[in-house]
Amino acid sequence: MASQTLLYEGKAKRVYLVENNDQEVRVEFKDDATAFDGKKKGKIIQKGIINNSISSHLFEYLHSHNIKSHFISKLSEREMRVKKVEIIPVEVVMRNIAAGSLCKRYGMEEGKVLDIPILEFYYKNDAFHDPLLNESHIYAMNLATKEDVSKISRMAKKINAILVDYFERRNLKLVDFKLEFGRYKGQVLLADEISPDTCRFWDAESGEKLDKDRFRFDLGNVEEAYKEVYSRLLGEQFQ
Amino acid sequence: MASQTLLYEGKAKRVYLVENNDQEVRVEFKDDATAFDGKKKGKIIQKGIINNSISSHLFEYLHSHNIKSHFISKLSEREMRVKKVEIIPVEVVMRNIAAGSLCKRYGMEEGKVLDIPILEFYYKNDAFHDPLLNESHIYAMNLATKEDVSKISRMAKKINAILVDYFERRNLKLVDFKLEFGRYKGQVLLADEISPDTCRFWDAESGEKLDKDRFRFDLGNVEEAYKEVYSRLLGEQFQ
Repeated sequence: MASQTLLYEGKAKRVYLVENNDQEVRVEFKDDATAFDGKKKGKIIQKGIINNSISSHLFEYLHSHNIKSHFISKLSEREMRVKKVEIIPVEVVMRNIAAGSLCKRYGMEEGKVLDIPILEFYYKNDAFHDPLLNESHIYAMNLATKEDVSKISRMAKKINAILVDYFERRNLKLVDFKLEFGRYKGQVLLADEISPDTCRFWDAESGEKLDKDRFRFDLGNVEEAYKEVYSRLLGEQFQ
Repeated sequence: MASQTLLYEGKAKRVYLVENNDQEVRVEFKDDATAFDGKKKGKIIQKGIINNSISSHLFEYLHSHNIKSHFISKLSEREMRVKKVEIIPVEVVMRNIAAGSLCKRYGMEEGKVLDIPILEFYYKNDAFHDPLLNESHIYAMNLATKEDVSKISRMAKKINAILVDYFERRNLKLVDFKLEFGRYKGQVLLADEISPDTCRFWDAESGEKLDKDRFRFDLGNVEEAYKEVYSRLLGEQFQ
């Protein structure tokens, strides 16, 4: 039986120890959903199952394009085995189309296609509400080295290019997404998850939002949207 | 008599047309002071006179170090003649020691000396409360070109190096400061002002704050602090 020693519980995932193995951990995806800096809380039924499948699928796809991640294998409906990375406390956001905080913060019009993708860094720190920062802040606070930041930026841009194309073929616009990275044996690996919780997906024809914005703004059909993304990516209906 | 045609009124300055000259304007420094995004309003008696003198003095000093600015000459107690630049809507902040929004936003300890100065860009836009941004936002919103940003960054770092040294010799620590730049005949020029309104100055021995923070946080002796900076820079008591 798998170890039940909980190492860490986040908003959407639990991380468990793997017995007799200090190089790997087991990640369990929950149905819990939060938004607006934790002020809104709820559940999206079967989200954990869907996001585990989608993330596993995308990590495998990215591996095939030479993007190294913490992902080892899908273990069960809600669990994946991953390398035990030390998370770099800088969240990376890539944006192809203006939406969300970009519109709120700078008044950009939602839906405006960006000529060049926007790359943003946020300080991963709940107490300070994950504020935007720039490279000089990262170095002043010793959050990552210049080498790390340069590696992360290159990987984020490459991942964006790969995924934009991948989703386009599935009739989805990849509006923006958040990535996390971790250190493992001297390497920088993509970590966390890639799912409708961490990406904005719009239907390429109708523009319908198929991601966590449905939960954030009470747009209805939340579960249906997650299942729709699942079926377009996995090529089968979600059961 | 000088033209009284007002072109623009800001929080701390008025800008007037110069008759029969569309290349220059006259700037008048007011005693009005605002803080916290305009929520706090007040007056600092004779501030306009002091800031005009200090800014004129510093622009001249920077000219002597090959930093080109809009400054032409001091006209009177409260007025300077400047080139009529088109202001680039990106405010540049250089930080040598952690203070102000850096501590509030990221929890850095006030007074921490930064190994490498922090360079920040803010979107100059009152309606959006001058939010922090990065280079990719600047390009996405067409606020400035890559060439502009590279020029501005180089100038800001050079100005910082020159002024840190200059103030050190006057027993003042240059904690941080805000700069604005403008376009003029294809050139990027330093613009706006450099004064205790736009810089944080701490006495090198006592650490006493000698800048607008005395007004922001009701520390008392506001006028005295501005006069103290005046006398250390101009080499004479403010009358």
